[in-house]
Amino acid sequence: MLNVGLLGAGRIAGVHARTITAHPGSQLAAVSDHFPEYAEKLAAEYGATARTTDEVLADPSINAVLIATSTDTHSDLIEAATAAGKAVLCEKPVDLSLDRARACQRAVRLTGQPVMIGFNRRFDPNFGAMKAALNAGEIGKAEMLSITSFDPAPPPLAYVKVSGGIFRDMMIHDFDMANFLMGEAPESVAAAGSSLVDPGIGEAGDVDTAIVTLRYADGRLAVIRNSRRAAYGYDQRVELLGSEGMLQAENVLENTVVKSSAAGVTGAKPTYFFLERYMPAFTAEWSAFVDAVGAGTDLPVTLDDGVTALAMAEAATRSHQAGAPVKLSDI
Amino acid sequence: MLNVGLLGAGRIAGVHARTITAHPGSQLAAVSDHFPEYAEKLAAEYGATARTTDEVLADPSINAVLIATSTDTHSDLIEAATAAGKAVLCEKPVDLSLDRARACQRAVRLTGQPVMIGFNRRFDPNFGAMKAALNAGEIGKAEMLSITSFDPAPPPLAYVKVSGGIFRDMMIHDFDMANFLMGEAPESVAAAGSSLVDPGIGEAGDVDTAIVTLRYADGRLAVIRNSRRAAYGYDQRVELLGSEGMLQAENVLENTVVKSSAAGVTGAKPTYFFLERYMPAFTAEWSAFVDAVGAGTDLPVTLDDGVTALAMAEAATRSHQAGAPVKLSDI
Amino acid sequence: MLNVGLLGAGRIAGVHARTITAHPGSQLAAVSDHFPEYAEKLAAEYGATARTTDEVLADPSINAVLIATSTDTHSDLIEAATAAGKAVLCEKPVDLSLDRARACQRAVRLTGQPVMIGFNRRFDPNFGAMKAALNAGEIGKAEMLSITSFDPAPPPLAYVKVSGGIFRDMMIHDFDMANFLMGEAPESVAAAGSSLVDPGIGEAGDVDTAIVTLRYADGRLAVIRNSRRAAYGYDQRVELLGSEGMLQAENVLENTVVKSSAAGVTGAKPTYFFLERYMPAFTAEWSAFVDAVGAGTDLPVTLDDGVTALAMAEAATRSHQAGAPVKLSDI
Amino acid sequence: MLNVGLLGAGRIAGVHARTITAHPGSQLAAVSDHFPEYAEKLAAEYGATARTTDEVLADPSINAVLIATSTDTHSDLIEAATAAGKAVLCEKPVDLSLDRARACQRAVRLTGQPVMIGFNRRFDPNFGAMKAALNAGEIGKAEMLSITSFDPAPPPLAYVKVSGGIFRDMMIHDFDMANFLMGEAPESVAAAGSSLVDPGIGEAGDVDTAIVTLRYADGRLAVIRNSRRAAYGYDQRVELLGSEGMLQAENVLENTVVKSSAAGVTGAKPTYFFLERYMPAFTAEWSAFVDAVGAGTDLPVTLDDGVTALAMAEAATRSHQAGAPVKLSDI
Repeated sequence: MLNVGLLGAGRIAGVHARTITAHPGSQLAAVSDHFPEYAEKLAAEYGATARTTDEVLADPSINAVLIATSTDTHSDLIEAATAAGKAVLCEKPVDLSLDRARACQRAVRLTGQPVMIGFNRRFDPNFGAMKAALNAGEIGKAEMLSITSFDPAPPPLAYVKVSGGIFRDMMIHDFDMANFLMGEAPESVAAAGSSLVDPGIGEAGDVDTAIVTLRYADGRLAVIRNSRRAAYGYDQRVELLGSEGMLQAENVLENTVVKSSAAGVTGAKPTYFFLERYMPAFTAEWSAFVDAVGAGTDLPVTLDDGVTALAMAEAATRSHQAGAPVKLSDI
Repeated sequence: MLNVGLLGAGRIAGVHARTITAHPGSQLAAVSDHFPEYAEKLAAEYGATARTTDEVLADPSINAVLIATSTDTHSDLIEAATAAGKAVLCEKPVDLSLDRARACQRAVRLTGQPVMIGFNRRFDPNFGAMKAALNAGEIGKAEMLSITSFDPAPPPLAYVKVSGGIFRDMMIHDFDMANFLMGEAPESVAAAGSSLVDPGIGEAGDVDTAIVTLRYADGRLAVIRNSRRAAYGYDQRVELLGSEGMLQAENVLENTVVKSSAAGVTGAKPTYFFLERYMPAFTAEWSAFVDAVGAGTDLPVTLDDGVTALAMAEAATRSHQAGAPVKLSDI
Repeated sequence: MLNVGLLGAGRIAGVHARTITAHPGSQLAAVSDHFPEYAEKLAAEYGATARTTDEVLADPSINAVLIATSTDTHSDLIEAATAAGKAVLCEKPVDLSLDRARACQRAVRLTGQPVMIGFNRRFDPNFGAMKAALNAGEIGKAEMLSITSFDPAPPPLAYVKVSGGIFRDMMIHDFDMANFLMGEAPESVAAAGSSLVDPGIGEAGDVDTAIVTLRYADGRLAVIRNSRRAAYGYDQRVELLGSEGMLQAENVLENTVVKSSAAGVTGAKPTYFFLERYMPAFTAEWSAFVDAVGAGTDLPVTLDDGVTALAMAEAATRSHQAGAPVKLSDI
Repeated sequence: MLNVGLLGAGRIAGVHARTITAHPGSQLAAVSDHFPEYAEKLAAEYGATARTTDEVLADPSINAVLIATSTDTHSDLIEAATAAGKAVLCEKPVDLSLDRARACQRAVRLTGQPVMIGFNRRFDPNFGAMKAALNAGEIGKAEMLSITSFDPAPPPLAYVKVSGGIFRDMMIHDFDMANFLMGEAPESVAAAGSSLVDPGIGEAGDVDTAIVTLRYADGRLAVIRNSRRAAYGYDQRVELLGSEGMLQAENVLENTVVKSSAAGVTGAKPTYFFLERYMPAFTAEWSAFVDAVGAGTDLPVTLDDGVTALAMAEAATRSHQAGAPVKLSDI
């Protein structure tokens, strides 16, 4: 049984609190937050106790910690929690600074504690079925990957300004998905980006529309498209061309109803945003964490995966600034 | 080379004139019509000559006749044309009177001339692919057939009144499709019908919405749904459940464009009506006729098929009136 | 808070135990079963106590009972539970005997207790969206309904023999769906059925393949197709033609992955059977029951609905035997 | 009436011969080819006469010329034909050399004769519907375009070696499609390519798998994906994200039949290659040419369009070689 301390009490922490509680192999022991009243509210809802983060980390009965705090605290908390002997599941990204993330990586290695990064999309059943079909050889050798990842609407400008930019904040999920499906990191990254959705995003030095091309050592190619706005909802599709065929993971729709009328044949939109689309993935992610920590086996997503995706985001950011491809080995 | 006389110069005759002309194995020699000016116009358009029907039938250089006149003339013209030694392709139905159609059937048999009835849907490439998959054993043994056949809008009441009713006029195509796919005629027919689309249709003694269930000697079942109105266009789908799977022939759409917006995900409507949907079928139908007559082989659809479908329409009409199933052997 | 006694500890009872426990407005107090060891096992799993049915009904702290026992006990238990002042949710059907069900209906009326019948499909989000679109006038007036309902594989013959036949056991769900969508019961029922899947089902006096046509007082029509076997899984589709368009609720698929290869373009199958397909419906059904009982408002599905669907099943059974339509008012 | 000389008698010339003949506003007068016997064969098939190219150009009764010869002759023939006062429809590309194409462009301008380049995809009804929806404002302002264009199988190496490379030979169609939909040429082009399908293509200095990113002056972005191999057939899709929605033009399928079985739900493949997929486009292209030349109005695709697409291909080739984006203004 995992006795879990939840660091953070915001929206995504709430999702995790439910998932931790529902899993037969874990229980929510404590919740901490920068704002204690939030921790108290969430703890009360799930029969846990509100504590300070230090108390959570000092409690020897707590053997796992889920970090769902703001990004700037991730590295410190990962280090502190592993130093305290906890197994860790931390939301992405590891850090906005690649250097800091790498320092964290080194520190964690010394502790030998398992750290998983919350790339929840790896646990989406559709992408999982895609990966399984690829591994089963159903399309031969993978050659060209295409990831479409559009948010329904841009976040507030205040968020954008501290987000680290679209590549570190949004596309990092897609970088990890590319690594998951292609089985390795690319050799180089070429980014093109524009501010088309909200001029304020451009004024903040960020972009809201981006296309990134990845090249792998053996010549395979991938392209990732991001937009901060899709009027029809959350667009999350993956397409992989192989030597013997193609796999596509299509969007999950709100329902299966189709209306035919004089105006055309209309079906439901994709589920609105990540909480709707990836709820099964959050559940499966936690289950995989509980299983691996319980059995002492390798975690399905590691801190190294988090650092690699962050390096790709860094490369994309530099490529966008320089207007030229960037080698990952130069990052 | 088939030297063809076209009897009739209406809309469907125009379709046939084009098909006859475009086929390398046939040429349009003459056109006749009740209204000579219509014949002259159509003949001029395709470089043929306008003649009377008697002249066409008396011309020994004309070896095939396509009958596209009004239904009440079909039987007489089939008899006259076969007596004159012509090969015949006649639009459906053979006649509104089953007795008259059977008399025609007997008369034709004495001539030994080939007569094909224009059940063009058998030549639709989608239904053809379905039949081929069935014959290839892809769904095992056929068990339950479902035919959906909705017109976009009801015909004028004046037409309805002389049409012979929905079962003889509209569903007769679906009866033939059932025979085509199930490989035999059913044992019994049970019809339910209502006038929901246009009260005038009900006042004329006809229905505009109907469900007919067919039972085969070996217990297999089929259901045909007809409506005289579908706001989204011409709905022509077939679904066949077998012991090892199901085949569905979906509608042909106007184009492949899909729009995703806040209002949903909208694709194109089905092609509007039979001229749009079945144009490839008209072409393939004529080609099959030319090939079979040229080679002296069996026609793919025969006068017997036309009489069988008419008998099923008669059975459905009586079943609807009696409110009980009717055996085909009682017709 | 509903304090719930669960009568029955079989597979479907297990589903309900989970749903009852997960709902914030209900808790599982006790489980009973004909085989006490089953009750003990299920109760232990959810922190409830195993008791006899009599003990459950006699316990004044238990204010609601969920009946998930074998069909032949439903009527007795509904009567006993309502007499004991409990709110009741009972699995379908009310009884295999329409007379017994009607007697139960009368007995319950005297108690004034709320009784809901477990027609879970009304709570499927897809059918719910369809109903909402219909109610919103999106297709005008409903005219012709078509329900496709195929099981993936036939049940054991031993089950078939005590099931009451396909109309009472399987199609009863579809009868209720028709009532749900058409807003009333039909005037007459015409059934055709065959034993095509398993000869043993025919020898047991039942059919495994059936088509039933419903006619409504105002002329609207409906058709229900049932098969005990679909090689591709559980086929649960509804299609409703209206004066201004058509609504279709398509199958829920296992995942959204599509593979294109030399063999064609292949997507996932429908979810395998009712537990997979209707899990969200079971959850929503219980939630609706808890809400209505808690607020003292009308139940969304009533015992009357259960009796109506049973009467339709009775009519279909008689129609199949007589080979002619049967009026519901004659049942 | 256009009296047409067809230069070239290969496969694509055969398609044009049929289209010219079938159109009521044009007739095929003469055919020429480097191999006179090919010209004779094709001319005989369509009732035209075989001549030398010089004879065709010298014949004042011939007022239009369709150039379907090998690429290296296009510029010379366009110049000769326009100098002879003919209207010209020439297959793409104008030339493999951008300098030569530009010289041709200058020469043609002096003649004032209309020259259309055979970018047939602009006339595909699906892409046409997409463009119409965009122009109608259905998705607001275009922001990100994605073109998928995969051939079913690579051409022979001998062809690859003289093709000018994938960007000039294959992707040039997609460059024109981008110009068609985005309404202007891009500012810069960034290409990534690999030889994954056939090592021989790489040894010949070409690539068979490529991703090209286009950036427009106002920040809009586009990406084009090419592969010389798709095991499932010809993949021709376009997707356009706008400020208020997304448009997708999906593949045209061989038929509408869907098979559900234990192996999944399988539909037909895309039509195999360009002759199948774009036959309606070839017909519409010719019709647009006949209409514009007849009416003396602007051609829907011009020689300038051909030169622009060629410049983009040149930019992509250089970008691929340099490993960095290339400005179109530098070409």
